[in-house]
Amino acid sequence: MNREVAMTVRVAVAGASGYAGGEAVRLLLGHPGVELGALTAHSQAGETLGTVQPHLAPVAERVLEPTTPEALAGHDVVFLALPHGQSAAVAERLGPDVLVIDLGADFRLRDAAAWERFYGSPHAGIWPYGLPELPGARDALAGTRRIAVPGCYPTAVSLALFPALAAGLVEPEIVVTAASGTSGAGKAAKPHLLGSEVMGSMSPYGVGGGHRHTPEIAQNLSAVAGEPVSVSFTPTLAPMPRGILATCSAKARPGTGAAEVRAAYEKAYAEEPFVRLLPPGSWPATGAVTGSNTAQVQVVLDESAGRVIAISAIDNLTKGTAGGAIQSMNLALGLPETTGLPRVGLAP
Amino acid sequence: MNREVAMTVRVAVAGASGYAGGEAVRLLLGHPGVELGALTAHSQAGETLGTVQPHLAPVAERVLEPTTPEALAGHDVVFLALPHGQSAAVAERLGPDVLVIDLGADFRLRDAAAWERFYGSPHAGIWPYGLPELPGARDALAGTRRIAVPGCYPTAVSLALFPALAAGLVEPEIVVTAASGTSGAGKAAKPHLLGSEVMGSMSPYGVGGGHRHTPEIAQNLSAVAGEPVSVSFTPTLAPMPRGILATCSAKARPGTGAAEVRAAYEKAYAEEPFVRLLPPGSWPATGAVTGSNTAQVQVVLDESAGRVIAISAIDNLTKGTAGGAIQSMNLALGLPETTGLPRVGLAP
Amino acid sequence: MNREVAMTVRVAVAGASGYAGGEAVRLLLGHPGVELGALTAHSQAGETLGTVQPHLAPVAERVLEPTTPEALAGHDVVFLALPHGQSAAVAERLGPDVLVIDLGADFRLRDAAAWERFYGSPHAGIWPYGLPELPGARDALAGTRRIAVPGCYPTAVSLALFPALAAGLVEPEIVVTAASGTSGAGKAAKPHLLGSEVMGSMSPYGVGGGHRHTPEIAQNLSAVAGEPVSVSFTPTLAPMPRGILATCSAKARPGTGAAEVRAAYEKAYAEEPFVRLLPPGSWPATGAVTGSNTAQVQVVLDESAGRVIAISAIDNLTKGTAGGAIQSMNLALGLPETTGLPRVGLAP
Amino acid sequence: MNREVAMTVRVAVAGASGYAGGEAVRLLLGHPGVELGALTAHSQAGETLGTVQPHLAPVAERVLEPTTPEALAGHDVVFLALPHGQSAAVAERLGPDVLVIDLGADFRLRDAAAWERFYGSPHAGIWPYGLPELPGARDALAGTRRIAVPGCYPTAVSLALFPALAAGLVEPEIVVTAASGTSGAGKAAKPHLLGSEVMGSMSPYGVGGGHRHTPEIAQNLSAVAGEPVSVSFTPTLAPMPRGILATCSAKARPGTGAAEVRAAYEKAYAEEPFVRLLPPGSWPATGAVTGSNTAQVQVVLDESAGRVIAISAIDNLTKGTAGGAIQSMNLALGLPETTGLPRVGLAP
Repeated sequence: MNREVAMTVRVAVAGASGYAGGEAVRLLLGHPGVELGALTAHSQAGETLGTVQPHLAPVAERVLEPTTPEALAGHDVVFLALPHGQSAAVAERLGPDVLVIDLGADFRLRDAAAWERFYGSPHAGIWPYGLPELPGARDALAGTRRIAVPGCYPTAVSLALFPALAAGLVEPEIVVTAASGTSGAGKAAKPHLLGSEVMGSMSPYGVGGGHRHTPEIAQNLSAVAGEPVSVSFTPTLAPMPRGILATCSAKARPGTGAAEVRAAYEKAYAEEPFVRLLPPGSWPATGAVTGSNTAQVQVVLDESAGRVIAISAIDNLTKGTAGGAIQSMNLALGLPETTGLPRVGLAP
Repeated sequence: MNREVAMTVRVAVAGASGYAGGEAVRLLLGHPGVELGALTAHSQAGETLGTVQPHLAPVAERVLEPTTPEALAGHDVVFLALPHGQSAAVAERLGPDVLVIDLGADFRLRDAAAWERFYGSPHAGIWPYGLPELPGARDALAGTRRIAVPGCYPTAVSLALFPALAAGLVEPEIVVTAASGTSGAGKAAKPHLLGSEVMGSMSPYGVGGGHRHTPEIAQNLSAVAGEPVSVSFTPTLAPMPRGILATCSAKARPGTGAAEVRAAYEKAYAEEPFVRLLPPGSWPATGAVTGSNTAQVQVVLDESAGRVIAISAIDNLTKGTAGGAIQSMNLALGLPETTGLPRVGLAP
Repeated sequence: MNREVAMTVRVAVAGASGYAGGEAVRLLLGHPGVELGALTAHSQAGETLGTVQPHLAPVAERVLEPTTPEALAGHDVVFLALPHGQSAAVAERLGPDVLVIDLGADFRLRDAAAWERFYGSPHAGIWPYGLPELPGARDALAGTRRIAVPGCYPTAVSLALFPALAAGLVEPEIVVTAASGTSGAGKAAKPHLLGSEVMGSMSPYGVGGGHRHTPEIAQNLSAVAGEPVSVSFTPTLAPMPRGILATCSAKARPGTGAAEVRAAYEKAYAEEPFVRLLPPGSWPATGAVTGSNTAQVQVVLDESAGRVIAISAIDNLTKGTAGGAIQSMNLALGLPETTGLPRVGLAP
Repeated sequence: MNREVAMTVRVAVAGASGYAGGEAVRLLLGHPGVELGALTAHSQAGETLGTVQPHLAPVAERVLEPTTPEALAGHDVVFLALPHGQSAAVAERLGPDVLVIDLGADFRLRDAAAWERFYGSPHAGIWPYGLPELPGARDALAGTRRIAVPGCYPTAVSLALFPALAAGLVEPEIVVTAASGTSGAGKAAKPHLLGSEVMGSMSPYGVGGGHRHTPEIAQNLSAVAGEPVSVSFTPTLAPMPRGILATCSAKARPGTGAAEVRAAYEKAYAEEPFVRLLPPGSWPATGAVTGSNTAQVQVVLDESAGRVIAISAIDNLTKGTAGGAIQSMNLALGLPETTGLPRVGLAP
């Protein structure tokens, strides 16, 4: 219980019909300082939550409203779970005192050219970045009224690798292969995402630097490394609904020892409520963090190959999207950072 | 928030290394009136929760104690998640003032002969039965210090069919096919439960009346029908970790109409916090109740075949085991029945 | 090896882009008497098989043609894997000497009124029914130039129950719950069939007599019973790509004994190459028949409930669609019935 | 059809109760030049194949014999699917004229010290290595009477990377993350391999150079590169029964261009019957090769990260074990290399 939560904020979710928006609603229903306001949608406006998101039993009778300025007015906090490129226009109408939390990509990238290359639309700008575990992030989030929630892969990869890069233990060239559950691809019906297609199959996509999360990973890690970090990133689609397992590595700098690597991670994560650095010999599993805001992290120095291997597991929808967003919301509102966020996963 | 929860009870879980015990711990960690006491195990005593149940991050550093009277002493409530036949001996040592909640089968069956036939050991007795939705159950649970938690299948089947039987709308001969996730079979490693074996496969077991939950289903439904109910029950193993989908039917009594059937269910479930009778045309899905204490129920009269078809979906470990147990615990302790129990499922 | 196969027939598949058509191509590639002719599609015409059906490696470079009379001309055999209602028009253009094998429903139902009620379009007629195991079916298939391939559920249910009904051992009122893999719902992208939605979830559909396979099941079983058989049929969607597990039961007629039931099934299936009546105590599993034309069947008398329980497992795309179709094709062409058909499943 | 197969060899499978042995039997049943002899097992000797491997319907009535010299005597070919360290003793008793095909690791590694470090037992020696696609491999396999079948991961990784290394296009330091289906871990019941544990979860194992396939990968690739290749290999367990997706990369040597990379792979695989180099823009998926002996391969130069990314998908039990073994058997016996081996996968 969070007995210290005296205030109650009124929160709207735009795009509550999708996976990210639905996860936001799921978590907000358990947040002691939140009163749920408007829930909006685009093509499914007019339908009940019970039809569109049948797991959200307590709000099953509520009807999805269209995503309009009127529907979103009168809230303290608005979550935007919209297609890329739509957040700026909606945010403008909400006024500077409303806390706007963008689950999309619009305000993540500092580099306008990179944005345009990867997203093909004009750059909207940059907002405080909602990954509190990164150095300096909490200061930027305290009191802010605009938050750019990180992408799910950048969350997983940054948590796996930033301690090694911040401590200068590895070369600034990283190789990442990440497996994601299918909910990362969203709820729009596409043939290759059918259950018949994904069950029993693993496949890569966006190979060779083409995935939109590549520049975001590079931005995060270059900042902590203090020098440009080259990123080779291969995402793969795994036959499970949720979860990201990010297997990351970089060449160890000369003289880097195993104890030093471990120490860097222990220091980075000693006080983090949502990162569990596993004891030596244990390895992350996405199944252990399903539905929770916890990230599992492990690291090892492969002496023979001369590389540091760092692996993280998160729930892409929770820590990777809506949970991370609420963690940042708590910081922006001055609430205890852990308020309303599950650290316990659902297993088996 | 349950601001009305002033008291705190100290709770132990015996058998916290298994699936049922682990689910009890998961839920108790979110219960505002509970302080978690001893967590015990048999062969895995001495290991940390972090190793055995890595999803229980907040208690990862705690060590499983052996299941002894000493370890279980000094608690207000003790959950027993033990193999069949062991609960009586443990309960005896706990004293009459301790609330003992047996997740196993030992105290469910009234009929000693049926117990011995299906379980092959002496009958231990009968305790108040923890399915609050059944007629009269809440009275028996209020203030009790002993609770027999129902089996997962009997929970699903009873919720699907009791309103029709209680209202006399169907003949007392029911046919049930139920699909269960693999966690219902427990955590002991057996070849036919390997991931390689269960993924991509459906198969029945205990066919022809052999499953131990058959007499428990008959006991529940005969009580509400006021006459013996014959049960044809076929459980099947489905390629998913959690969930029970129970497809149940019985011949409609002459004159039974569709509106009457609907009305009986609406009346039975109008005030139930954990049963969601779906709107006509919607059907239960186990994926909508994963991790929640909610049961989804739907019913229809098949005029052509002359049968009432009633279908329920629950999470076998939550509403079907540990969640149902906590719901009954709340009643026994005089807490609001819904305290600490999720109604929201985890989806997708 | 089928050294006796001297002739070679040229075979086209209309609708080779879908799951049923793809399975037909997969099996025809292994048939020693077949030369693969045109492969056609509708919206995916012009694409390569390698893109649309990447598992069909030997024909990866071939291009899907549009489904036109010209494309289908000049073949000895044409498989139609088309949406309901389109087969009659295509078949008409093919001439009476071409063997036309309809994987769709158009020519299955004798009762025009039932057809129109369930399919909502004019009745096209009836062709010889391609379930060779049914009494009399082989005679009707020998030499025919038109075959109506059964639905996947009717195949599974008919194989499970016809011996009991033919022997008069049960009342003509059957209750069926069947679990199907998602490929049974086809390859059209619909939100509820997304991997995220189906993995980890079981749900029913078409409950209460609404499924289109209900009248086909009744037709098959009424014919063998010699009296109208009432069918209560509930299909469910299971989290696996392939397979049907049909759990079927009916009240035993007075005096029916367990040995008699067993004997009826042993007699029915003694010589059937594609039905494996399991030894007592073993139960069907869809995982054991994946990709094969084998059906597993088991039956038991539940003395306590007074019902005969018969369970079958098939691969819905193989024995349930394209494999069954080729089995019938062999009969029509005078080939050995088992030519080119796998009896071995793919497991694990 | 392989009309050219005139001879018939008698083949035994030692260890037919496991996944590798079962897959060998599945494929041998479809091989036109094979007569299936003894099928042996250890703890399951005396049971029928129908009980232990219910998918092998045609041999369901056969009984597993104990793995003894007597049982294995009198065969032309013997497959050994035994635990590590047992093959040498069995092979010795079989005589030099019998073709012995070891599906285990005993005779794969040239380096005795590496063997002892990774396997902890004395080095047995080295046999001709059964990966025909590697340069020079076919010469060594022609006429041999001893074959060491490669490990599943080394097959996938070698096929993905050897063309780039052989052509000198990349630095000899490779990074590999591979996802494997659970059958790769065998059929012995271990808690972490339970369906409840693996469904919905991805996790790594043997991280940091500890996996036994690491030295085998290094051995293969160093031979083609003509210099020592450093291997950073991270295997992960994926929630599917079969399949390996190997994501491999290495730094491009200065001056390496995209066209050159593509050309090296086109040249390497132009004539390979079991490797399908995908057209540019398509990516391998394990679901497309399930049950087939086909490997899908794709490669791209990531100009931004300066790395060549090569990805392969195989079925770990077919091309990765038993199918690869039969391919080598065909070469040893002078049969056409593709005899009896499916190039078509089972999908969906």
